[in-house]
Amino acid sequence: MSFQPYRSPSSGRPVRAVLFDTFGTVVDWRTGVAREVAAFTTAQGVALDAHAFADHWRALYQPAMEAIRSGQRGFTKLDTLHRENLDEALRHHGMSPERVSSETLKELNKSWHRLPPWPDSVEGLASIRRHYIVGPLSNGNTSLLLDMARNARLPWDVIIGSDMTRTYKPLPQAYLRTAEFLDLGPGEVMLAAAHNSDLRAARQAGLATAFIARPTEHGPGQVKDLVPEGDWDLVASSIPELANLLGA
Amino acid sequence: MSFQPYRSPSSGRPVRAVLFDTFGTVVDWRTGVAREVAAFTTAQGVALDAHAFADHWRALYQPAMEAIRSGQRGFTKLDTLHRENLDEALRHHGMSPERVSSETLKELNKSWHRLPPWPDSVEGLASIRRHYIVGPLSNGNTSLLLDMARNARLPWDVIIGSDMTRTYKPLPQAYLRTAEFLDLGPGEVMLAAAHNSDLRAARQAGLATAFIARPTEHGPGQVKDLVPEGDWDLVASSIPELANLLGA
Repeated sequence: MSFQPYRSPSSGRPVRAVLFDTFGTVVDWRTGVAREVAAFTTAQGVALDAHAFADHWRALYQPAMEAIRSGQRGFTKLDTLHRENLDEALRHHGMSPERVSSETLKELNKSWHRLPPWPDSVEGLASIRRHYIVGPLSNGNTSLLLDMARNARLPWDVIIGSDMTRTYKPLPQAYLRTAEFLDLGPGEVMLAAAHNSDLRAARQAGLATAFIARPTEHGPGQVKDLVPEGDWDLVASSIPELANLLGA
Repeated sequence: MSFQPYRSPSSGRPVRAVLFDTFGTVVDWRTGVAREVAAFTTAQGVALDAHAFADHWRALYQPAMEAIRSGQRGFTKLDTLHRENLDEALRHHGMSPERVSSETLKELNKSWHRLPPWPDSVEGLASIRRHYIVGPLSNGNTSLLLDMARNARLPWDVIIGSDMTRTYKPLPQAYLRTAEFLDLGPGEVMLAAAHNSDLRAARQAGLATAFIARPTEHGPGQVKDLVPEGDWDLVASSIPELANLLGA
């Protein structure tokens, strides 16, 4: 085969693996979580705005990881952080987590394992996979990403969870240890993400970068990450468009 | 769906993941390595028995890992051990590794990344995957197992290499850390292997067990692992037969 892999101008190397941020880039966390929150609150006989609840739950994500990134807390996997943050989000919405069975809360916490893909994700990943290694590069733990892949039929070649690198993006080790498991140099790995901050950290670590616009990740009123804020190697409005740009 | 997962009598738990030993169980290392050794020796203008060379190279595998299992040497990934053992195998066959370019030897070492599947492997794994998580539980490192999967089209859901557990079978941690990454109890994981010693260690660690007979792994004169030597949960002569026994 005469396929010529994409060569990143920033790294000067042919890209062998295209790895994806997941929450927001490959899957629609807000819709998926809100749907399960709505079913939960209906079952509990409580009325609340499920999308606002999802936004709040998600807003607790970065501070929880920050405690670990800063060294204040030992590595703790994302399922555990999500579960702790669920208690906090429930209280914030006037519900008492102690009044709900732990089995029910554990199940609701797994809504992050069952997020729906964006409509173009599966097709786009399958195209890229023909010529490149594809996988997530996510703060999710392995079992979360595995369940997500099986539920959404994401055709990953490999799943390297944050519990394998034992660190969280955007720390450089999250990108570098992932490349190391693949036996690739950083410049042979591309991060595709809908978030400029993730791409900034990936480039800093030497990875190739692709921005994929997901203008409704945060709902209809989204104000950030609508456009690329750096000279990323590639810019696309969907994963199939990225596949085209990669020649896949 | 009303699918009832197989429940192991030894663990009493429903099996969620069926993980496979790879070298010998899923892929035919002897044929694959001998083929690349034959091409290499022809190119070098050397005559030798490529199957005997493959056997010798493979025989150095357990002693190399034993140095790590015993704590005598820090964790070193299998690609590196294979590369060191290649030098030794070449010398044993009267060749001087110093006289071959390092690029050529690196490529030959990658023959372990390109092993052909047994004829039933891909079909059998695809069947099991419909109802269970499937993956390798191998002493191979992640990049080796990933290349193997892409080359042989093995439909793994997840690849947990020995460089992720940082230990080698048959040490218990190799099995237990793999189950932990999957967020499963040991009894929810089944090891399928063509080697009784591997199954003994897996059962000791609490896993469910399946023996798959591979009577030509070591060539026509094979004397060991021809039959199950324990009361393994399941016994099959191929992966599709195992799929049937698992109801998949």
